[in-house]
Amino acid sequence: MTKISFDNTKFLINLSDDDQLSDNRNEYDVNSTQHDSINDDSDQQEPGQSEIPDENIISGEYESLDYDLCENILYQSEEKKRSRRNLIKIEFMRWLVMFFVGVLTGFVASFIDYSVVHVSDLKFKYVRRFVDNCVENYCLEQPYLIWIGFNGILVFVGALLTVYLEPVAAGSGIPQIKCYLNGVKVPHVVRLQTIFTKVVGVICAVGGGLFVGKEGPMIHSGAVIAAGISQGKLNFFRKFDFGIFEFFRTDTEKRDFVSGGAAAGVSAAFGAPVGGVLFSLEEGASFWNQGLTWRIFFASMISTFTLNIVSSYMRDHPWDLSYPGLFNFGSFDTTTYSGIEIPIFIVMGIIGGLLGALFNHINIKLTKYRRKYITNKWTRVVEAMMVAIMTGTISYLFLYINNDCKAMRHDQEEVTSQFFCNDGEYSSTASILFNTPEESLKKLFHEKPGTYQAGTLAVYCICVFLTACWTYGLFMPSGLFIPSLLIGAGWGRLFGVMLNYMFPGQTWIDFGKYALIGAAAQLGGIVRMTISLTVIVMEATGNITFGLPIMIVLMVAKWVGDLFNEGIYDMHIHLQGIPLLGWEPEPVMSNIAAAEVMSHPVTVFRTKESVGRIVEILKHEPHNGFPVVEDYDPFIEQASGMNLILFGRCRMRIFVIALQSSEGGAETFGTFQGTILRSQLIVLLKKKAFEEYSDSQMIKRSLTVRDFREAYPRFTPIHQISITPQERNFTIDLTPFMNPAAYTVTDVASFPRIFKLFRALGLRHVPVVDKRHKVVGIVTRKDLARYKVSRHFGTMSVGEKFISSK
Amino acid sequence: MTKISFDNTKFLINLSDDDQLSDNRNEYDVNSTQHDSINDDSDQQEPGQSEIPDENIISGEYESLDYDLCENILYQSEEKKRSRRNLIKIEFMRWLVMFFVGVLTGFVASFIDYSVVHVSDLKFKYVRRFVDNCVENYCLEQPYLIWIGFNGILVFVGALLTVYLEPVAAGSGIPQIKCYLNGVKVPHVVRLQTIFTKVVGVICAVGGGLFVGKEGPMIHSGAVIAAGISQGKLNFFRKFDFGIFEFFRTDTEKRDFVSGGAAAGVSAAFGAPVGGVLFSLEEGASFWNQGLTWRIFFASMISTFTLNIVSSYMRDHPWDLSYPGLFNFGSFDTTTYSGIEIPIFIVMGIIGGLLGALFNHINIKLTKYRRKYITNKWTRVVEAMMVAIMTGTISYLFLYINNDCKAMRHDQEEVTSQFFCNDGEYSSTASILFNTPEESLKKLFHEKPGTYQAGTLAVYCICVFLTACWTYGLFMPSGLFIPSLLIGAGWGRLFGVMLNYMFPGQTWIDFGKYALIGAAAQLGGIVRMTISLTVIVMEATGNITFGLPIMIVLMVAKWVGDLFNEGIYDMHIHLQGIPLLGWEPEPVMSNIAAAEVMSHPVTVFRTKESVGRIVEILKHEPHNGFPVVEDYDPFIEQASGMNLILFGRCRMRIFVIALQSSEGGAETFGTFQGTILRSQLIVLLKKKAFEEYSDSQMIKRSLTVRDFREAYPRFTPIHQISITPQERNFTIDLTPFMNPAAYTVTDVASFPRIFKLFRALGLRHVPVVDKRHKVVGIVTRKDLARYKVSRHFGTMSVGEKFISSK
Repeated sequence: MTKISFDNTKFLINLSDDDQLSDNRNEYDVNSTQHDSINDDSDQQEPGQSEIPDENIISGEYESLDYDLCENILYQSEEKKRSRRNLIKIEFMRWLVMFFVGVLTGFVASFIDYSVVHVSDLKFKYVRRFVDNCVENYCLEQPYLIWIGFNGILVFVGALLTVYLEPVAAGSGIPQIKCYLNGVKVPHVVRLQTIFTKVVGVICAVGGGLFVGKEGPMIHSGAVIAAGISQGKLNFFRKFDFGIFEFFRTDTEKRDFVSGGAAAGVSAAFGAPVGGVLFSLEEGASFWNQGLTWRIFFASMISTFTLNIVSSYMRDHPWDLSYPGLFNFGSFDTTTYSGIEIPIFIVMGIIGGLLGALFNHINIKLTKYRRKYITNKWTRVVEAMMVAIMTGTISYLFLYINNDCKAMRHDQEEVTSQFFCNDGEYSSTASILFNTPEESLKKLFHEKPGTYQAGTLAVYCICVFLTACWTYGLFMPSGLFIPSLLIGAGWGRLFGVMLNYMFPGQTWIDFGKYALIGAAAQLGGIVRMTISLTVIVMEATGNITFGLPIMIVLMVAKWVGDLFNEGIYDMHIHLQGIPLLGWEPEPVMSNIAAAEVMSHPVTVFRTKESVGRIVEILKHEPHNGFPVVEDYDPFIEQASGMNLILFGRCRMRIFVIALQSSEGGAETFGTFQGTILRSQLIVLLKKKAFEEYSDSQMIKRSLTVRDFREAYPRFTPIHQISITPQERNFTIDLTPFMNPAAYTVTDVASFPRIFKLFRALGLRHVPVVDKRHKVVGIVTRKDLARYKVSRHFGTMSVGEKFISSK
Repeated sequence: MTKISFDNTKFLINLSDDDQLSDNRNEYDVNSTQHDSINDDSDQQEPGQSEIPDENIISGEYESLDYDLCENILYQSEEKKRSRRNLIKIEFMRWLVMFFVGVLTGFVASFIDYSVVHVSDLKFKYVRRFVDNCVENYCLEQPYLIWIGFNGILVFVGALLTVYLEPVAAGSGIPQIKCYLNGVKVPHVVRLQTIFTKVVGVICAVGGGLFVGKEGPMIHSGAVIAAGISQGKLNFFRKFDFGIFEFFRTDTEKRDFVSGGAAAGVSAAFGAPVGGVLFSLEEGASFWNQGLTWRIFFASMISTFTLNIVSSYMRDHPWDLSYPGLFNFGSFDTTTYSGIEIPIFIVMGIIGGLLGALFNHINIKLTKYRRKYITNKWTRVVEAMMVAIMTGTISYLFLYINNDCKAMRHDQEEVTSQFFCNDGEYSSTASILFNTPEESLKKLFHEKPGTYQAGTLAVYCICVFLTACWTYGLFMPSGLFIPSLLIGAGWGRLFGVMLNYMFPGQTWIDFGKYALIGAAAQLGGIVRMTISLTVIVMEATGNITFGLPIMIVLMVAKWVGDLFNEGIYDMHIHLQGIPLLGWEPEPVMSNIAAAEVMSHPVTVFRTKESVGRIVEILKHEPHNGFPVVEDYDPFIEQASGMNLILFGRCRMRIFVIALQSSEGGAETFGTFQGTILRSQLIVLLKKKAFEEYSDSQMIKRSLTVRDFREAYPRFTPIHQISITPQERNFTIDLTPFMNPAAYTVTDVASFPRIFKLFRALGLRHVPVVDKRHKVVGIVTRKDLARYKVSRHFGTMSVGEKFISSK
């Protein structure tokens, strides 16, 4: 192929600010040496050293997932061979995997629930007995110490596991799943030891009396299960699959299953299968894929179903499925609301938004402090224990001081705690403090009016608010839903009590209703989720009457909260510098063109590339995708200013040397032919698919998609591949392996257009070409995410943001 | 810009079958002269004339909607001027529009419901009185004639309106909305007279005793309302908006609002706000847009809310919102199911799938017959009346013969019909036949065991099945949900009766439960919707306990039904030759490349194009998008075979004439610069933006995005624009108006890749370029859809399909 070109295309966009463009590459170096733990990121950063908040840094630690199929010749030939029967088999396998994901997630959720309930029961029973005994014998420090000891030991075990075995299991797991579904490879997030740590850790955390929920960890567990099963990592499956699951070893398939797993987790945790589907879609799906959504729904349903069957056995009514999922808010059947109450709900939404923003603000300050000073492993364990002891102490003190006694009622079936009350009375404070968080929540929703005094509720709220704020971010698996709901239900009920005080005798004032709305408002104010959260809360309440009020408070809470800061998950994600792509680009960005966003200059490979250059580039460039070009000489190009371009090696024997003026047009890097991935190059180097070997044709022909797939997901690092000096002079023909149909954008494409392309198709990088199809740069996910992270530092203009974010 | 090129690139794909490629353009001519009525399509086709089923023809009548923004210089400059305040205002307006969409949809749904109930009540009251009177006086022909007369007149009015005013209002409207959301412009689908016809027509249809539902028309109404409000067509809004709604006059914005309207319609019809959102997403959304989904949800909620408030006033309990939406299945609270029943549900799903496939088969045969023979307007009206009279007669006969009398119970509050029964008894047959369809359905779900004899149920099922099958496709607005549910509830209950007969005394056999499952199975077997339908049924039953069984039966019914034919909506869509894109490409298509799919040769414009050529092409080519190229001479290219390619008009004064051999490489059409739309060209011609006018610069500068937007959505036809012969020699510079960032695909891109791009980004056409960025063809939505429609003619291979589908 011959091409004589004299190119002096004028660019439409302004490229004069060369520094800005070439600076882009720094992103790859920031923090790129840290691969151990997510939370070690900013160790080297001295406090106050920089004016730029560290949320602005996009960490180099996180790779992106690649959802774009590489449609090279190998893939094409595999596809041609594939029969319809084979395709049906794969489709069937997808359903089968989803089935097992649902079943296992249901079992794991049941196990967590069962363990938590029994550990807590054991603890409470023991402490209660001591209290009953000690009230008479003046030995109240005994039950306190027992309680503290119990909590401390459990939390110690959980923290130990988390810190030493798998730090990524800390927290709720939702941020990590969110990142994964968004397309970021968070290290270790779907490993076996992660789920082990998560499950044991969360049992310890909830059993240890921390104000944490088990719902987030259940969602994370579902995701890990899905990743595990789909990759055939369990020996049981590998024995039986006869290589079928091998087809699922791509980022795309794996993410699809993880979506299903996360949905199954939500479904199991809240008994909300539809909410689970919407959660996965909201967080993950870029392109609404009907078949996939249907399978996700299936996994959700199966998960609820399994859970219900297990719990029907627990309740000795085998196969009786009338009881809904694990965690629900109890029946609100009798209550209703009037349209006139909507302004009241809006006020509650505002309160929720404000309190949520405050919670997030305090928590993020604390987290930054923690990242700076609590960096040793053992201090992390100690901190977790401290929080456990503190929580226990506060609860105990609260119980002792605020001895809110009520007369025992006949309709109370469950065990109530007498505590420091007289005989025939029970302590209403104990009913919310001396219980699992889920039970406390139900009490706040459903106890009769008059059960809790206003003061009790107020103090309870403040205590839970502060301790939960301290707890989230500890090195413990810990969900945030339940504490948020508890805070909200507390002040919501208080709100109802106040309303009743102001408008006495009004029948429409139902404390439970306000507790529910408050809980929703608080949760919305903290996590700022919208659609899926509405549906989850609706499904948890078990009826759709409250749909509109819940939606309104969540919406108002989000709007109010967003005036101050982001949702807590997003804040934690940005603190770690994860390149998360938002839903939509900022609208003011529509006048930013590809040429301003892209990384430039860009490292390219020629269609026939020398082994030596490949090895060198792979060693020194952290990039994962490279454009493959023709008509480009990397060595001549380096002499910039006036570029000497050589077009050679052609059959027609026309050699033309052209002088390209770099002024007026951007530097170009040859005509775009396709893209090739680092992982593919490594396989090519390992398999020695070099042109100069006499049997190279054979090697090339014998290389199949399977060779590339087998290496997934952990590719050999480049320095472990031995290449002899002689081999370095060989060349590889990249044409059969590159993706010739890769998407490209032109240099005048706007930021929103590129964003949409990335978001909708799940891309990792897209080459930028000029009108002649010459590569001028490459836009990566991180280039886009960089614009996003600097969003909440209001005063800067977009241009400044761009510079400061590097 | 100069470029000397000698291009002999080899194509990777086989292009030897030239006939095949050039035949592609025929698609634009098929039926392109018919613009009047959707149902006139195949008038010219003689029966048996062709071997190819007419579903295979993609009609030229349907334009596609364009969701891709044209990011030309005008747009860019408008975006640059846009302040953040302005953006917030637009965002606020979006919410406001959605609010009004919800409110109005709720009102319209209430109006339909109110009218139907009152018209039916009037009729039944009158007939009942006559029956009671005539049983004694032996004048039973009198009530019969009154009934028939009443039905006949109502249906006559409805059919008259539909046939003469707006034929597109016939049927349920769901296929049309589905097409619109999919990106096909069905003519008149969102017009004012459509909603008028729909609303009045459906009241007549249901009031006239046809076996039709009002739910589909409600969904359609919501969509029309959304389109109307968002475009500021109502004078009320135009007065107050100060030009803000003008921003919404693009296909993208309009479709977004229509999604919201459709969701609001579902929400109002079934009291299923979440189901509504999922319906819109399932049918429409390509790219999951968080903000949009949230707004759709808002519209849904507001719609249910409005409806509830209206109905609270109707029930004289103003603002009491404890009652759920319009149509629900009544409370199933007491029933439950056991896991062991799941095989039974699967069997029911199979039955539903089989019966659904049968229903669709008969209906489509009937529709084809109807399209051939019932082509006169008056015969259509007569047919509708015939069906009405037939339905009445069958019901009356059935009532008379099958006089299934039961003793009156004390707990029956509502009016029951004595009919031909003794005093103290009531006719259970009348309770399902002599009622609105919704009430009949609730009776089938909730009446006590023993109310209906097996024989009654069986005959009822068959009657409804046949009449409903005949009814759907009449020129009447008519929903399909309710008749499907009635059929299913009938045989479901029968199934329960049979089970009870086989396993007498089993407590788990609840007739209502089996009626519900049967209804779901039948509905699933007919419409083959999945996710949204599950959620709609779940929300209509008001609890989530039945989630899994409903999902399973819907899934099984779909799978079984899909073995025989498609869902009824899809069949009707394909019968009309609408280029609907499915969810996913057929998996076997992954080895088809862009070069095989694309239309070729392609009509292109040069960046500076003569007015005469533009006018000629617009007059003779029905295309809507054209690539804009450089280095191309349309007149020389016409001499095919050996193509003489001239690269000229350059500053460097290098003219090169190259001989391009067309063998081995495809013909190319110059270097791709951007795309331009027909609508844009027409505006340019109208505004006379010609280079040769002395003030052309001024004209060009003064043209703004607004000029293009004002022309939306009905552009002047080309023959109404007067161009003088002198003006024909002028040129237009297309560069500022074309979309320079338009997406392209390379000729080696696979079918699924292009499909995904179209689906995810809502494209209408995408130019195909070769490695040198030269245009080689264009892929339109219709090119893709053509592969899809031939899906159910199993024996043909893909290649054959391709040919026969033209």
